[in-house]
Amino acid sequence: MNDKKKISMAVIRRLPKYHRYLQELLDKGVMRISSKELSKIIGFTASQIRQDLNNFGGFGQQGYGYNVQELFLGIQEILALKQTYKTVIIGAGNMGQALANYPWNQTSGFEIQALFDINPKLVGLTIHGLHIYDIETLSDYIQENQINVAFICTPKERAQEIADILSKTSIQGIWNFSPIDLDGLDDIVVENVHLSDSLFVLSYLLNEDADEESERR
Amino acid sequence: MNDKKKISMAVIRRLPKYHRYLQELLDKGVMRISSKELSKIIGFTASQIRQDLNNFGGFGQQGYGYNVQELFLGIQEILALKQTYKTVIIGAGNMGQALANYPWNQTSGFEIQALFDINPKLVGLTIHGLHIYDIETLSDYIQENQINVAFICTPKERAQEIADILSKTSIQGIWNFSPIDLDGLDDIVVENVHLSDSLFVLSYLLNEDADEESERR
Repeated sequence: MNDKKKISMAVIRRLPKYHRYLQELLDKGVMRISSKELSKIIGFTASQIRQDLNNFGGFGQQGYGYNVQELFLGIQEILALKQTYKTVIIGAGNMGQALANYPWNQTSGFEIQALFDINPKLVGLTIHGLHIYDIETLSDYIQENQINVAFICTPKERAQEIADILSKTSIQGIWNFSPIDLDGLDDIVVENVHLSDSLFVLSYLLNEDADEESERR
Repeated sequence: MNDKKKISMAVIRRLPKYHRYLQELLDKGVMRISSKELSKIIGFTASQIRQDLNNFGGFGQQGYGYNVQELFLGIQEILALKQTYKTVIIGAGNMGQALANYPWNQTSGFEIQALFDINPKLVGLTIHGLHIYDIETLSDYIQENQINVAFICTPKERAQEIADILSKTSIQGIWNFSPIDLDGLDDIVVENVHLSDSLFVLSYLLNEDADEESERR
């Protein structure tokens, strides 16, 4: 534990959603918004919004609402979206290629440099302007190119051995799409994507008389 | 609003995570667990866990902890994971193919029947045992095969026209991977996947001295 005030992960996990909706408001030219109006479009209660944003201080002014741009930039800053990360994708199958095709660096600092795969049919190809290298060369590539982040898109069975390789490199963060918890990564931050969590929520929604559209988003 | 007790979506969104961890406990042969022990592995506070599970009633016994299997089955029931949904994937690019390749029906009731695309190079192919049909035939296919659910994996630019088509069919639910909010789907439940939300959390974690591993999952 360090001394500085720890913002709960529950709050942090809500910030990307604020970021998205504030981006939309900015695109529409909206300058100011009250917690009540924001509540209507984002689906959190106004009191939740005030509480969340109080964590960072100074964004809102009683009776005047929030300055949309200030709030947007503040959240961008907290999420460190202007930092740059040299990133590789491990596993050049469908999911790896889908991620390679997405312009992550338009809204965040993740710059995809290359893909890696074990499949000789894929190694040597270039997709979306990115080269696919042999997984054997991963460690060396990370060291030589000062890579910070890896997206893991391998099959489940291969993910732990990739984690073992990465644990011995300078990689600082992993975005893990394989549906297992990776071990032995004490000095690396790991964000797991569990797509089925979202699908299970759809399953729930299909079976209830959902009546609050805003809550679903 | 209907009369039955409305469980908040915040609680519902935590249930798939309980489901995952309880599955792991079952696989390890764990029969009972206290809210305190569950808290350690799942990363929610024990009081949060008790509060969440109280929504459904009767799972825990004071001093005895939770019956893992009962809890697991209870959550499975709430999420309606035993219901069957005939599902199509719209957009047979990398993301569509990645989703087609995943055995969703092992843990939930989503049974992928077919894919649809606009690209003549893809139409007519079979991937992972699933046929790719021309998007022109989508409405008819849905009607003839009593399809309930669509996964939208088209580029952003095409997603709204797909939504317009689906709004005139018997589709009940959409899992939307395109990064826009779809309009005109009042009678259809929509669950949006925003992968960048998860990536932005990784961006945050890379910039703080994260010290609570359990919270990150």
